[in-house]
Amino acid sequence: MVSGSRAVERCRELGHPPFSDRADGLWRGYLTPAHRATLDRVGAWMHEAGMTTRIDAAVNLIGRYEGTDQNLPPLIIASHIDSVRDAGFYDGPLGVMLGIECVAALHEAGRRLPFAIEVYAFGDEEGSRFPAAMLSSRAVAGTLKQVPDLADSDGIALDTALAGFGAAPATMAQARHPGALAYFETHIEQGPLLESENLALGVVTGIAAQVRYALTVKGTAGHAGTSAMPLRRDALAGAAEMVVAIEALARARGGDLVATVGRMEVLPGAANVIPGEVRFTIDVRSGDAARRDRAAADIHDALRDIADRRGLGMRIAQIHDLPASPCDPRLMDMLEAALVAAGHPARRLVSGAGHDAMVMAALAPTAMLFIRCRGGISHNPAEHVDPADARAALAVMLGFIERLGESRA
Amino acid sequence: MVSGSRAVERCRELGHPPFSDRADGLWRGYLTPAHRATLDRVGAWMHEAGMTTRIDAAVNLIGRYEGTDQNLPPLIIASHIDSVRDAGFYDGPLGVMLGIECVAALHEAGRRLPFAIEVYAFGDEEGSRFPAAMLSSRAVAGTLKQVPDLADSDGIALDTALAGFGAAPATMAQARHPGALAYFETHIEQGPLLESENLALGVVTGIAAQVRYALTVKGTAGHAGTSAMPLRRDALAGAAEMVVAIEALARARGGDLVATVGRMEVLPGAANVIPGEVRFTIDVRSGDAARRDRAAADIHDALRDIADRRGLGMRIAQIHDLPASPCDPRLMDMLEAALVAAGHPARRLVSGAGHDAMVMAALAPTAMLFIRCRGGISHNPAEHVDPADARAALAVMLGFIERLGESRA
Repeated sequence: MVSGSRAVERCRELGHPPFSDRADGLWRGYLTPAHRATLDRVGAWMHEAGMTTRIDAAVNLIGRYEGTDQNLPPLIIASHIDSVRDAGFYDGPLGVMLGIECVAALHEAGRRLPFAIEVYAFGDEEGSRFPAAMLSSRAVAGTLKQVPDLADSDGIALDTALAGFGAAPATMAQARHPGALAYFETHIEQGPLLESENLALGVVTGIAAQVRYALTVKGTAGHAGTSAMPLRRDALAGAAEMVVAIEALARARGGDLVATVGRMEVLPGAANVIPGEVRFTIDVRSGDAARRDRAAADIHDALRDIADRRGLGMRIAQIHDLPASPCDPRLMDMLEAALVAAGHPARRLVSGAGHDAMVMAALAPTAMLFIRCRGGISHNPAEHVDPADARAALAVMLGFIERLGESRA
Repeated sequence: MVSGSRAVERCRELGHPPFSDRADGLWRGYLTPAHRATLDRVGAWMHEAGMTTRIDAAVNLIGRYEGTDQNLPPLIIASHIDSVRDAGFYDGPLGVMLGIECVAALHEAGRRLPFAIEVYAFGDEEGSRFPAAMLSSRAVAGTLKQVPDLADSDGIALDTALAGFGAAPATMAQARHPGALAYFETHIEQGPLLESENLALGVVTGIAAQVRYALTVKGTAGHAGTSAMPLRRDALAGAAEMVVAIEALARARGGDLVATVGRMEVLPGAANVIPGEVRFTIDVRSGDAARRDRAAADIHDALRDIADRRGLGMRIAQIHDLPASPCDPRLMDMLEAALVAAGHPARRLVSGAGHDAMVMAALAPTAMLFIRCRGGISHNPAEHVDPADARAALAVMLGFIERLGESRA
């Protein structure tokens, strides 16, 4: 059996102990007992699919299927096997399982590409245990120069956890890859766009540029009963007008631009006190950094106007600014050709979420395929992928590999 | 010296130990050491002003200045001497101090009214120590049928605290007053209205009717990066539109109608997650309960429309509903006449905040005089009253007492 259905079934199998660190839901942390059990099981599946396996200095599992030309660098097909707490089954593992199915299909057909294929199961993408994300892919990409001093929520240090796997912070960087032909990641969309358009698959154009701000709006706290409406400087009424303006502005831009107010604190926060201060975050993303920056600047202008008109104080601090990580145009064309050849409409979309591909872009040109997930729900036990969509993804992945092979023949 | 200035000075004196339970600010709790010290000091001032004093079964301090007609019930002039934590000096004590000054002025002039004057210093208005407000005025008004089991934040029971003052829960109701001619309270406005109109004083028309709701808005939580704007059901964007609508509706009504969203919780509350649920409170007040209820109904309709248009769930629960407590029309006219005679413009305003007068309305017709306070600030160490305004209030209070005396001569 070689199938996308099996990939889905294997993700489900990995959703429970011993492959979960919790009995009452899925949590697979980096360097935990569940991680170890998963390395063993996934390694066995890689063997069955015709690969040799090894674990690198950052505790990533790698299955390798040799090519015919030893001088060519390999194609990396990858995703992560760690999970958030109370996770769904597919965010990460599905990309790894489908990579294994690609090799299994080639192996069963006795087919070799000019280049080798390396399937990577990254140990840490989510920051699943330690307060830093994508540690293990950064080690592979060569961008993890120094490993920070980290401890998990139980106070166990990263170096102690690594030692349990025969690894160490000082040598993690040895996981650096010598150079790849391309990096290819298949992942669930984690958003509702494909489903809303009745599409199973989409070609990712890149990881969105993201900028995040912390806002503080200052008014005057006062008694809810004794302050006439015209005399108020209500920080929450002002902040609410700002949230509405942010949404309207992002909606008007359309396309891949999104803006979100996710956190809000209202102070002092009593039912009978007019709020004197409100703090909130703004997260703005687009596949195009310039587009994102224009929207952010317009948002700032709109908020400043609201604050001025209401006599409110306002402070904006930038929390972070992540550049866009575009996928490779030639690989995108190749992936789209495989998509169309498999009978799907061409559809390109940006990834609003970060992925290992963003990190691996430092090492190789990248391509990403998105699979529809029900309701766009992710990071939640309700995460769901239709096995038929996984089968469709497998066919497109194989088409992409063939096209990449032809380009290198 | 008989003056409003002295009343202000005495409030300041009471703002520090031993009259405060804290060294770093003012907190005078019910039945605390600071309360005891304050009873002693204020009792001495009452004596100096020509009154006999006693402490009732609810640990209120009462100074009595006899009238010429023993058959008439007394005029009660009152306010409270407890305070919130980190309080200003004037919220409560100023009304008591000015009551004492009224009697001192009459006493110095050798003047008796037909009726006796009783100056009450209520022990508990703020819920300053136990989680219930106006315990001691409710005992006097005869509406405290049963004393609830209460403990302060250190776990000390109300009955233990009462015992320290020779009182007990079972006998608190004995503080009930046999019947008063009128109840008269002078208090700082705790709002910005008088100041904004450049007025020192105003006649209170009553305590506003107040209704409070708890709202829950339900949308769909989602990844801030992966959900396109048109596909979102953002609970916070919906709640923000509701807050703006509530403010606009209350502003459009004008007059004494106020509506406030004071508390808001946004869930799950992460910068990169679209809020799935928002909970907030709405507080609506007006001197006219029907006006308040019409506004509340219109607010509900507007919020329902917003929720429906956005495909959001919405639940409204009423937290409480306090009826209006109007002041006595004849007493208001008398107080306004005294105000105008003292050279002030006639100005009537509703009290959005609760006061002992609201409770005492069950015993006697009530009148209240509001004194401007700087910036409308109260429940805050920055609370400030101009001594000239206190002097003006004293003159108007004496004018009111004279008019009441004439009506009873």
